[in-house]
Amino acid sequence: MFTSRRNFLGSAAFASGLVTFTSVAEATDKYMAKAGDGGFGRQAMPLPSGDVVAFHDPKDVGAMPDFKFSLDGNRPKVTTGGWAKEATVHQFPISKGIAGVHMYLNPGASRELHWHAIAAEWAFVIEGRCQTVVIDPTGASEINNFEPGDLWYFAKGHGHSIQTIGDKPCHFILSFDNGAFSEHGTFSITDWIDVTPKEMLSLEFGLPKDLFDAFPKGETYIQAGPVLRAEDALEAPWPKESTHKFRLLRDPKAARDFDGGTFRLATIDEFPAQKTMSGGLMTLKPGGMRKLHWNVNANEWHYYLKGRGQVAVFGSGGRGKVAEFGPGDVAYIPMGFGHAIKNVGDEDLEIVQTWDNGKFEEIDLDKWVQSSPRHLLRNNFAGVPDPTIAQLKRG
Amino acid sequence: MFTSRRNFLGSAAFASGLVTFTSVAEATDKYMAKAGDGGFGRQAMPLPSGDVVAFHDPKDVGAMPDFKFSLDGNRPKVTTGGWAKEATVHQFPISKGIAGVHMYLNPGASRELHWHAIAAEWAFVIEGRCQTVVIDPTGASEINNFEPGDLWYFAKGHGHSIQTIGDKPCHFILSFDNGAFSEHGTFSITDWIDVTPKEMLSLEFGLPKDLFDAFPKGETYIQAGPVLRAEDALEAPWPKESTHKFRLLRDPKAARDFDGGTFRLATIDEFPAQKTMSGGLMTLKPGGMRKLHWNVNANEWHYYLKGRGQVAVFGSGGRGKVAEFGPGDVAYIPMGFGHAIKNVGDEDLEIVQTWDNGKFEEIDLDKWVQSSPRHLLRNNFAGVPDPTIAQLKRG
Amino acid sequence: MFTSRRNFLGSAAFASGLVTFTSVAEATDKYMAKAGDGGFGRQAMPLPSGDVVAFHDPKDVGAMPDFKFSLDGNRPKVTTGGWAKEATVHQFPISKGIAGVHMYLNPGASRELHWHAIAAEWAFVIEGRCQTVVIDPTGASEINNFEPGDLWYFAKGHGHSIQTIGDKPCHFILSFDNGAFSEHGTFSITDWIDVTPKEMLSLEFGLPKDLFDAFPKGETYIQAGPVLRAEDALEAPWPKESTHKFRLLRDPKAARDFDGGTFRLATIDEFPAQKTMSGGLMTLKPGGMRKLHWNVNANEWHYYLKGRGQVAVFGSGGRGKVAEFGPGDVAYIPMGFGHAIKNVGDEDLEIVQTWDNGKFEEIDLDKWVQSSPRHLLRNNFAGVPDPTIAQLKRG
Repeated sequence: MFTSRRNFLGSAAFASGLVTFTSVAEATDKYMAKAGDGGFGRQAMPLPSGDVVAFHDPKDVGAMPDFKFSLDGNRPKVTTGGWAKEATVHQFPISKGIAGVHMYLNPGASRELHWHAIAAEWAFVIEGRCQTVVIDPTGASEINNFEPGDLWYFAKGHGHSIQTIGDKPCHFILSFDNGAFSEHGTFSITDWIDVTPKEMLSLEFGLPKDLFDAFPKGETYIQAGPVLRAEDALEAPWPKESTHKFRLLRDPKAARDFDGGTFRLATIDEFPAQKTMSGGLMTLKPGGMRKLHWNVNANEWHYYLKGRGQVAVFGSGGRGKVAEFGPGDVAYIPMGFGHAIKNVGDEDLEIVQTWDNGKFEEIDLDKWVQSSPRHLLRNNFAGVPDPTIAQLKRG
Repeated sequence: MFTSRRNFLGSAAFASGLVTFTSVAEATDKYMAKAGDGGFGRQAMPLPSGDVVAFHDPKDVGAMPDFKFSLDGNRPKVTTGGWAKEATVHQFPISKGIAGVHMYLNPGASRELHWHAIAAEWAFVIEGRCQTVVIDPTGASEINNFEPGDLWYFAKGHGHSIQTIGDKPCHFILSFDNGAFSEHGTFSITDWIDVTPKEMLSLEFGLPKDLFDAFPKGETYIQAGPVLRAEDALEAPWPKESTHKFRLLRDPKAARDFDGGTFRLATIDEFPAQKTMSGGLMTLKPGGMRKLHWNVNANEWHYYLKGRGQVAVFGSGGRGKVAEFGPGDVAYIPMGFGHAIKNVGDEDLEIVQTWDNGKFEEIDLDKWVQSSPRHLLRNNFAGVPDPTIAQLKRG
Repeated sequence: MFTSRRNFLGSAAFASGLVTFTSVAEATDKYMAKAGDGGFGRQAMPLPSGDVVAFHDPKDVGAMPDFKFSLDGNRPKVTTGGWAKEATVHQFPISKGIAGVHMYLNPGASRELHWHAIAAEWAFVIEGRCQTVVIDPTGASEINNFEPGDLWYFAKGHGHSIQTIGDKPCHFILSFDNGAFSEHGTFSITDWIDVTPKEMLSLEFGLPKDLFDAFPKGETYIQAGPVLRAEDALEAPWPKESTHKFRLLRDPKAARDFDGGTFRLATIDEFPAQKTMSGGLMTLKPGGMRKLHWNVNANEWHYYLKGRGQVAVFGSGGRGKVAEFGPGDVAYIPMGFGHAIKNVGDEDLEIVQTWDNGKFEEIDLDKWVQSSPRHLLRNNFAGVPDPTIAQLKRG
């Protein structure tokens, strides 16, 4: 990982050939402002131009944080029916807004009934087939079956479960809109039953107390079991406007292709259930680039499925960082941080991406420059020749 | 208070009699995953099933917090006209979202004009009669009279006061949607006048400066005074759709009874003024239970009026706690934590309950289990006999 | 700065001549409550009236914070084209919700293309003329020209720039709805280009890599340049309902004059773009006062343009502070804190004011008192003669 960090105080501003306003400015280019210089209230006055003086040195606030972590290089949690690896603020401190999990269910396994107290769950199915069951506070439940390229979204606190369909395993990427979703935020049904007094369980289910001795001791998490055959995996879907399922790779509304790559994106507009997150799959061709831009209203999270990517991030105050990513890596780009992604490998680069806002808002550097008046660009990029300015403006 | 805490790492998963997917799984049940096991990105692979390995030990994050406190066992603040006792995050650290006060006004007393800068106020009248006056930012004010079982709700920052009506005392439970409402968040009019320069007071009210020498020195809080006769306590109520008063025990819309108890609840739907809170009164018959459930979007707060209750709380990660409650106790159940309440005494158990969300959302364990497919429940509760599964499913 | 701080525990409540409820109260006025006094739940009981006993001593929570800072007495950041001074939580700890900047652009200068990742920007033009360009996430941009007394508002994260028009300098007050807007929250385009790999810039703009050697090294911030003539400064305004510009001093909708002063205010109602802030200009005549009031839903920020003002702030718990303000000073009044402003100089007092909420909500002490029933005021102000009460009530 390469880090660039300029000496903010030492960067001399380029000023030759420009109109100067005060004769004082000509007298010295070593002018250093003192407290109170420039006047008070309506009685403000010009100051001689000088070296850049930062309000404060960005180093006082903090260095640019690491934005790369190997989720799949982490140690998995393995239970009887499969495994899961996670990236949360515990392992990856920058990722305050979004966490992620890679989960692998063997045939016949289920991720047991559970809920997340502090986060919504979004998922992209990589391989295999599975069934989810979800219940909401009205008591209504939906049952959906998923294939590779399908998404689900479960709101914060809604109970849900996942079960493999058929005799092949199923694995998927989960993303949560809270970087701390995991610690004391995930509630599994076997765990609940295990810590509840048996007298209460007896009243709860109308069953003799001693029957609860047969229940699992502690959280089973991903539980092995007999294969669920496709013909037994019946769906009970909801209407399109409220369903928890979206067919990202099959729904034409999701297509947002660009030069150098394809992008399939689900926002609250295409997938209304997904109120607090957006998410999709970006594919860059070799040499292709997702140009410089920033997200206005959300943090961004990447999981790399395939290929080699280079990401450059701009963190304000002279802070920039460039890193390379491969399969199983995650990236986290805080809200408002500038960034670009380039395929630096020989094959397609595939990235699952999520944002912690259902409304998707980004601004592209090239469009911004193109929409700026020429007199402004000439001023902003003092010293840059006019033909270059013209090319920036043309795009 | 009884605390259960399992050894997460040591709990062996029950797996006999199940289909196993890989021959590796048969080779060893002592498999411990290493970093990177399971593969990277699209190249994920199954792992032999093994002992449960938590992402992190829940003890690293924190033990289950105490969720019980004796509000009425606290030291009261006593002034000329009555007293008040409180439970805030200062005394009861878990209660970050909701605080409470038991306030007692003698006949002839008023809780002076004041506002809360950082919290809304919700109240349930236990005994006696009182009058409130409230002003909102449009300058409109409402005057309402209250009897036992009535509620009020005053939005954050709105000015209000409370005065006993008649020759009997009045006491009530207040609940605030901020656990830290009290410290530097409660502003009383006598306190304000006392710290304001007399020149400003003179301009404010068009009165000579020295007249303000007769004003109280410091906050009077609950002020003694002549009895307000019922015939002098005139109301100036607002229309039903905006009024600050709701007759919880008399309005049929509030009834949500269940097996084992009665429940009167006001949400934003029944009581539109109450935008940031819900609240009500739950009564459990001896032996009756409010079954296992969790709140999806809010923290829950209890004040025990009468009787003996047992509450079991599930805090995820193997954390459970059970405690008993009696008159004057408060309970606090964080958003998403599973819980149940049982009457373990010989008389009715009466609980004032509030939530810090006007929209009321809870999910019941029994309905969730009943709405799950049988193949899922069989898998989830591996080792539980089929007739028991059938009974869970039947409810 | 004068600070008043009462001894909370020692302030004897005035109680003579009032009806007393219990004979116990007569027996002792030195009664000090003990833990559990007053009873439990429904079994509550009166207590003898006694000295005031605070729930906790306000000093334990914190002294009244300083609410005055000299923004213009700060050290400016000076670059080739002008200067800027700021007040953020770094220099002025109380100002968590709102920060401010005084910015001075020489003729021919531009504040380069930039965005603020964590705050919206509001501005009041003091002197001179300037042009802004702003882009939103739909890719639409607006170009507006400004004169003294005009406002702009740019939403969080939207890209924008400011350029002086004509041969006179332009200066203005900026206000941001986040006290920490500055540290690592302001992103300038030259800074971004400087830290981005040249290979990426080449792909971004379709230009050879080495052309980027001519670009500025590091942030230019305010860049000197040739004067932008008025006839070249073309506007591209949006419709009134979405424009980023509001003519505060010319739009009759903004007028909210009062006894002793004038007030021009833009809220979301008059200036719809301004979704997260309100702002305006208050002018007090010599001796004039903005009477006692508090803001219900927002923090308040002042920048003093001209004159001498006295501000009294009430912070609850016996905490009050009075301070005098002159040109270049800023004040910060936390949400819900009572306050009043008086012109204590010989000329008009001019204050730029902002709030961190587009919906403007305040409550006036005098209207509150006037809308309270006489029986309540008599009780509340025990010991104050009836004619004074009558005058309070009359207003």
